Amino acid sequence: MSHPLAALFSPRSIAFVGATERSVWTRAAFANLRTLGYDGKIFLVNRKGGEVLGHPAVRMIREIGEPVDVALLMVPSETLLDTLPELSAAGIRNAIILSAGFAESGAAGRELQERLMALAREHDISLLGPNCLGFVNYTNKAPVWTVSLRPQRARDAKIAIVSQSGALAAQMSYFAQWQGIGLTYMVSTGNEAGVGVAQVIDYLVDDPATRSIALFLESVRDAPAFARACLRASQAGKPIVVLKVGSSEVTVRSAQAHTGSLVGDDRVFDAVCRRFGLVRVTSLEDLILTAEVLARWGKLPEGGLGLISLSGGLCEIAADRAADAGVSLPSLSSATSARLAAALPNFGTPHNPLDVTGGALLDPSLLEKSLDAVAAEPEFAAVLAVLDVASAAADDSKLLRQLLAGVAAAQARADRATLLISHTVRPFTELSEEIIEATGCNYLPCGLEHGIRAVARAIEWSKLAREVRSSANDKCALPGLDSRPESERQVLEYLQARGVPVVPAKVVNSAQEAVHHASALGSLVALKIVSPDIPHKTEVGGVKLDITGDANVAAAYEQILTSARRAVPDARIEGVSVGPMREAGVELFVGTMRDPQWGPVITVGLGGVWVEALRDTSLRLLPISQDDALEMLDELRGKALLDGFRGTPAVDRRVAAAVIAAIGDAALALGPKLVSLEINPLRASGERIEALDGWAEWSAPSA
Amino acid sequence: MSHPLAALFSPRSIAFVGATERSVWTRAAFANLRTLGYDGKIFLVNRKGGEVLGHPAVRMIREIGEPVDVALLMVPSETLLDTLPELSAAGIRNAIILSAGFAESGAAGRELQERLMALAREHDISLLGPNCLGFVNYTNKAPVWTVSLRPQRARDAKIAIVSQSGALAAQMSYFAQWQGIGLTYMVSTGNEAGVGVAQVIDYLVDDPATRSIALFLESVRDAPAFARACLRASQAGKPIVVLKVGSSEVTVRSAQAHTGSLVGDDRVFDAVCRRFGLVRVTSLEDLILTAEVLARWGKLPEGGLGLISLSGGLCEIAADRAADAGVSLPSLSSATSARLAAALPNFGTPHNPLDVTGGALLDPSLLEKSLDAVAAEPEFAAVLAVLDVASAAADDSKLLRQLLAGVAAAQARADRATLLISHTVRPFTELSEEIIEATGCNYLPCGLEHGIRAVARAIEWSKLAREVRSSANDKCALPGLDSRPESERQVLEYLQARGVPVVPAKVVNSAQEAVHHASALGSLVALKIVSPDIPHKTEVGGVKLDITGDANVAAAYEQILTSARRAVPDARIEGVSVGPMREAGVELFVGTMRDPQWGPVITVGLGGVWVEALRDTSLRLLPISQDDALEMLDELRGKALLDGFRGTPAVDRRVAAAVIAAIGDAALALGPKLVSLEINPLRASGERIEALDGWAEWSAPSA
Repeated sequence: MSHPLAALFSPRSIAFVGATERSVWTRAAFANLRTLGYDGKIFLVNRKGGEVLGHPAVRMIREIGEPVDVALLMVPSETLLDTLPELSAAGIRNAIILSAGFAESGAAGRELQERLMALAREHDISLLGPNCLGFVNYTNKAPVWTVSLRPQRARDAKIAIVSQSGALAAQMSYFAQWQGIGLTYMVSTGNEAGVGVAQVIDYLVDDPATRSIALFLESVRDAPAFARACLRASQAGKPIVVLKVGSSEVTVRSAQAHTGSLVGDDRVFDAVCRRFGLVRVTSLEDLILTAEVLARWGKLPEGGLGLISLSGGLCEIAADRAADAGVSLPSLSSATSARLAAALPNFGTPHNPLDVTGGALLDPSLLEKSLDAVAAEPEFAAVLAVLDVASAAADDSKLLRQLLAGVAAAQARADRATLLISHTVRPFTELSEEIIEATGCNYLPCGLEHGIRAVARAIEWSKLAREVRSSANDKCALPGLDSRPESERQVLEYLQARGVPVVPAKVVNSAQEAVHHASALGSLVALKIVSPDIPHKTEVGGVKLDITGDANVAAAYEQILTSARRAVPDARIEGVSVGPMREAGVELFVGTMRDPQWGPVITVGLGGVWVEALRDTSLRLLPISQDDALEMLDELRGKALLDGFRGTPAVDRRVAAAVIAAIGDAALALGPKLVSLEINPLRASGERIEALDGWAEWSAPSA
Repeated sequence: MSHPLAALFSPRSIAFVGATERSVWTRAAFANLRTLGYDGKIFLVNRKGGEVLGHPAVRMIREIGEPVDVALLMVPSETLLDTLPELSAAGIRNAIILSAGFAESGAAGRELQERLMALAREHDISLLGPNCLGFVNYTNKAPVWTVSLRPQRARDAKIAIVSQSGALAAQMSYFAQWQGIGLTYMVSTGNEAGVGVAQVIDYLVDDPATRSIALFLESVRDAPAFARACLRASQAGKPIVVLKVGSSEVTVRSAQAHTGSLVGDDRVFDAVCRRFGLVRVTSLEDLILTAEVLARWGKLPEGGLGLISLSGGLCEIAADRAADAGVSLPSLSSATSARLAAALPNFGTPHNPLDVTGGALLDPSLLEKSLDAVAAEPEFAAVLAVLDVASAAADDSKLLRQLLAGVAAAQARADRATLLISHTVRPFTELSEEIIEATGCNYLPCGLEHGIRAVARAIEWSKLAREVRSSANDKCALPGLDSRPESERQVLEYLQARGVPVVPAKVVNSAQEAVHHASALGSLVALKIVSPDIPHKTEVGGVKLDITGDANVAAAYEQILTSARRAVPDARIEGVSVGPMREAGVELFVGTMRDPQWGPVITVGLGGVWVEALRDTSLRLLPISQDDALEMLDELRGKALLDGFRGTPAVDRRVAAAVIAAIGDAALALGPKLVSLEINPLRASGERIEALDGWAEWSAPSA
């Protein structure tokens, strides 16, 4: 391996610096070498020399006398700064720092960490940590890990744990162990002064044993590197499952632009996952189980879930939970139904989920035949069968082994992804292990709830993996414009120039002009104040609708000016726009903003008061395609309104999506100084999709 | 015990009828007697006599020669009808029927089950089943259960499992076992030809060992008995946790009444739970774990959750999951903060959730002191601490025992409900058991996700237990009226008579009358068609808004009649209502309907197109109080609209709630023939809450 992190993560020699028998960290790290069967070199460094845990210790790093692949530093944080040059002098290029008290603990710690980083750069040392527990390379039996490891039981290890929290990584590894799930790597990145999750992911993309990555994130420290690593993983077909905390926080970014107040950081991270092909889960259990299911299955074809159980009640729970998890349970085709009816003559009409009843315990062939039939159903991306292995007394075990041998045979024949799961989450006992090895069944005792969620995420990941595109996008390369549209009129003119249809309104500066344009339009008109200082026109009496007749138009013009000037005395008023009233339609809200980490994002919602009261919006990183925009519209809870409601014509979603994508492109073309571009409302009725109001906010005053 | 089911569920003598060594059911049932240590009498009945499983068998029931408390019938379904009279003749009054092939399997089975039920009534036999697995009385070591039981490890059993599915009951018992949770009873009710879940709950309310009930339901067969039993349990302070399937189904009841199409059976069951004091969960794991947490804690005071962990990452996950589960994490009071700051001098500002960091592993007193402080916080209803018992190597166990002894001491001192939980769901190993017994800690290895959900449901149950009222309600006893309001005008007049404010509109039958009433109102007016055959007025052009001036009023009158007659030629038209336009306000939808099982229910939502597009509604069984209606308004996703939005006055929620409760009473007073009463919209602006349109549907033609 030639990856820059190969020596760090596959060490043939390890030094424990600051090793002492009194330390639980030293004792655990040392015991772990034996637990995993590490057979490389080990050096202990202790200021007093002598023996530590029965192993000779040298007093200084330079006394080791040969370069070492990695040094675990268990010295006080104040002496760390002296240690790095010593490592360098001894030819040691990789260091793991256990100590806390750095950036996570306030200003002094942040400063200390920066000095550490500078020293590491100066001495060309790769740092893991500080404030981490180290890493374990299970494949090469090389643990540099400072809390107790349990011996790994599973032989067929496929997943790697990468975690900013060492404590949670340890807990996940125990959970994996109880589930009979094997690990290839476990890496705790801590404060990420040197090596961060992005570099670890990048390393694991090249590791052939690692088939999927379970990632625990508190925050992303280097967004571009993270995005690159995730894209590489996606392109390599290596799934990343992520548990990221912070979903209960809502960050308010900008009081004036709606978009910022509608969207917390967490929704942006959802959009990041979608763009870069990660799937997101909400518990430590789901993180491990989903990664394992994806590791076993790889990329799934399109389709839903087929499920077989011996209990009608469980089938009903499965139907409910599938609906919650967002995975479909397609109906059986007539061919599959017929095949099942022949295989299960006494079981009535076959459905999905399929209840083969407890009778399958008496005739072990029933489950095998059912699985054969269901796994041939083209509508299914994957098939779960539910049956516990060795949960009750051993007198069932002969029959159970027959049953499981049949399941294993059907699994081997299936050209669909299949998995046998337990009813509830439960330990993978030694007896289960023995039976599973004897029968060759693909089994995970994750229980129905976690199992269905894992399948749902596996299907989601497979869909993303088909869609994920390179982050390099031609649209991003559009030259930034010199113009800086700011007022409503400028924004609407700019949008029109970028191919976004805009209502044929005209900004006028006298009652006479208003009357003139109104009669030219020849319909009921709407009058609206035009001012860069009045984003919410209705609230200041700046809007008059359904006006007809010269006198009414003139009166409305004057009333609008009077109200607006009274409400916002200092407002720069550019005039009053006079435009046609439109037939019944739906108002959409489209807004972009710039996330400090991830760059420009776009939000779409149903407009007016509802976007603000119900927060019914969809969000993506820019740029978006027309297909992305179609998906966004489909995510809205109120999407039924788009399909025509009580006589309102249905919105042509394809046309609306093209306009929304064009708005996104228009925002990108304005370059990085644009804070927010909002179209509110974007009026939609049939094929007529028109911007009625526009608004832009810039990062520095342009006047 | 004198409960009618005492002999069935606490038998001192059991007969297995149809026992044969070839049957897995016989073998399991027989082995279970030994597994649990049953020490009562056992009789086997086998047509051939001789020995079965080393035990002498008689050939006929009458040869038993003495009355037996319960007979387990493992005979073919076609011979069951002959068996019941034989039981009766032998003085056996309780029977358990294992066989399937009854009501669950079509018309012939239903008929067979009805004959069985008639025979049982005739011979005064209590039936459990058919299509069930029996029951286990763990307390008295009396199992009549036909699949293998595992020996129960936990000594301190507190929860009972009641399940319509035998297979799922068995799986839940295994899960409980892995969690170290003890059971008092497990009852599988199957098709409920005799004893149903209601009777079993009623029995368990009187069982002192059972502290909570875990209930799996496919459907409720006897709603009034179920409601009575649940109310008894609630009044006795005995929690019922329910997993009911069917949440993914949406039953459409009535095409014409909106309420029916808005509400599936499942939302009605949610309202049933709330009314009768049950809490609802969505997985088998949550069912058992929530029942266990409630059994340990009992009724909690008002408040939120306090949480302590040794990992910052876990604290962040906890915050996210608490938000999902609907449980608050109140901030620490300044007194608690100060106390914690003194106990944890180096840990920065204390928050809830509280991160005591891995340092607590080095100083076992830190966790104890933190728990003491947090458990004194008056804002907390309950406190969770997160720390796994015996997950890793045993060399930590001395320190771990100190740590847990401290936790146990703090738990014993706390006047709050406390629980130590694991990070992830995991087995309660023998080593954990030994350590927990030695330290006396209150510990459950349920993991954070299940643990937080269980606490959320425990807090919810405690709130319901404070609120649940008797189902006997004076309001239900209101005499049914002779009148049968049907048209909009009749409905609005009826509502007004029942104290519901109604817009001062008048139904007119000529343009002249319309003009006259409009000028009497002295404001902009709304004209609407009035016809029992036109529920959706807008769609037929039957509504004109914001009309002013005699000529416009007269024209609107004629246009409405013309449009409506063209759209619905056969409509019975009673006239056109002329009413005042109202200031900006919010439109609510209020509708009642009659559930076939549970009787009248009421739905409240934000009106207009939104209730139908977004299905943003709240539902309760009737009657409701003003407080219930306040809660319903608070459940609406769009509730922000009620608080004033862009210049619309805030709705006085207390007045609105009183009106909604009055509408519920008005619907109840119309008696059981009323299918649906709808007020759409109920207009709300400040303190003015007025019904604008009303509509009633009756179960049989009234003409």
